[in-house]
Amino acid sequence: MSGQGRFVTFEGIDGSGKSTQARLLAEHLQGTGRDVVLTREPGGSDGAEEIRKLVLEGDADRWSAETELLLFTAARRDHLERLIEPALAAGKVVICDRFADSTRMYQGLSRGDLRRKVDALHDLMIGREPDLTILIDMDPGTGLERALSRGGSEERFESFGASLQAQMRQGFLDLAVEFSDRFVVIDGNRGIEAIAADVRAAVEPRLT
Amino acid sequence: MSGQGRFVTFEGIDGSGKSTQARLLAEHLQGTGRDVVLTREPGGSDGAEEIRKLVLEGDADRWSAETELLLFTAARRDHLERLIEPALAAGKVVICDRFADSTRMYQGLSRGDLRRKVDALHDLMIGREPDLTILIDMDPGTGLERALSRGGSEERFESFGASLQAQMRQGFLDLAVEFSDRFVVIDGNRGIEAIAADVRAAVEPRLT
Repeated sequence: MSGQGRFVTFEGIDGSGKSTQARLLAEHLQGTGRDVVLTREPGGSDGAEEIRKLVLEGDADRWSAETELLLFTAARRDHLERLIEPALAAGKVVICDRFADSTRMYQGLSRGDLRRKVDALHDLMIGREPDLTILIDMDPGTGLERALSRGGSEERFESFGASLQAQMRQGFLDLAVEFSDRFVVIDGNRGIEAIAADVRAAVEPRLT
Repeated sequence: MSGQGRFVTFEGIDGSGKSTQARLLAEHLQGTGRDVVLTREPGGSDGAEEIRKLVLEGDADRWSAETELLLFTAARRDHLERLIEPALAAGKVVICDRFADSTRMYQGLSRGDLRRKVDALHDLMIGREPDLTILIDMDPGTGLERALSRGGSEERFESFGASLQAQMRQGFLDLAVEFSDRFVVIDGNRGIEAIAADVRAAVEPRLT
């Protein structure tokens, strides 16, 4: 069944509920008899998890934006080779919570001049794009409240303020326009089940 | 004295004596009053040393060639930003035992098709080339004997056989032709002092 797999990614700001939706979609598809791999970035394979630790532990300025970009790309390459590509080749549905669009958005936001490097590095060393990207679009204030109320998260991804949340939301919406062939934007300001139904409706036609 | 620094790298097969020669050159230049930074790759800065450990520890097939290339490039970027560029900007002589030419040679040798990626990645994320590269050229058999007699080295760089040593020697000689504007090839099959004198003679005219 080589080449029959489908690669679906979830993107969105912290607190958007994308991880919950990725899990619900995986459970739903498994219930219909699909072979599903649910994974997430940064990390997702043994080597990538080790690189993730190296990047996310320690001071925020421990790595420059460029070095961090190289480390995340190394982690993504490992994740792609060891988990994603073999699963796709075996005909599975791979659902990944965050992928290259998160890198484009975060690095582009922190240093606008980096976006060209992000794209060049992706083309050179990764190449793979999702078949479908679900953007869970969420009011930045609500997203931030949710992310903070979770508490306990020591990760830098979660440590942004309200104004930055708004910029990140806009950054994802801009990517949805740039890559309109594979992005579907779903309103995340609703109940979990209503959102999950929209996710299923977006994904199912693309699996056959 | 911004921009007055000089970046000198040493390359050569294992057992060629390049590390000894790098140290002797550093001591000589310090003796003449020069401000010198002696460093080496992979590693050379705190972050790069951590990435080095991640790459060199564990099984040889722990990382693919592409992931390893990304990790080494991340380490080089950190080393360049934190140590090499600031020292050059302060007018110092930076002497580095191995740099990008080692990556070109090793990765190109293990997978010929990687050389294009090595070059593209270097242009995109590193950019810096040495002002002068000293290649200590050494009979591969002698180099291997020396490297093995050192013993105790657990690093994969040192675990190659005689035929591969010969290919690596040729790989460096090919780079010396490709980058003839900055490479100087010195015969390493002689006594340490004779080699050191040739190194000094090659370096000193380029420092003024």
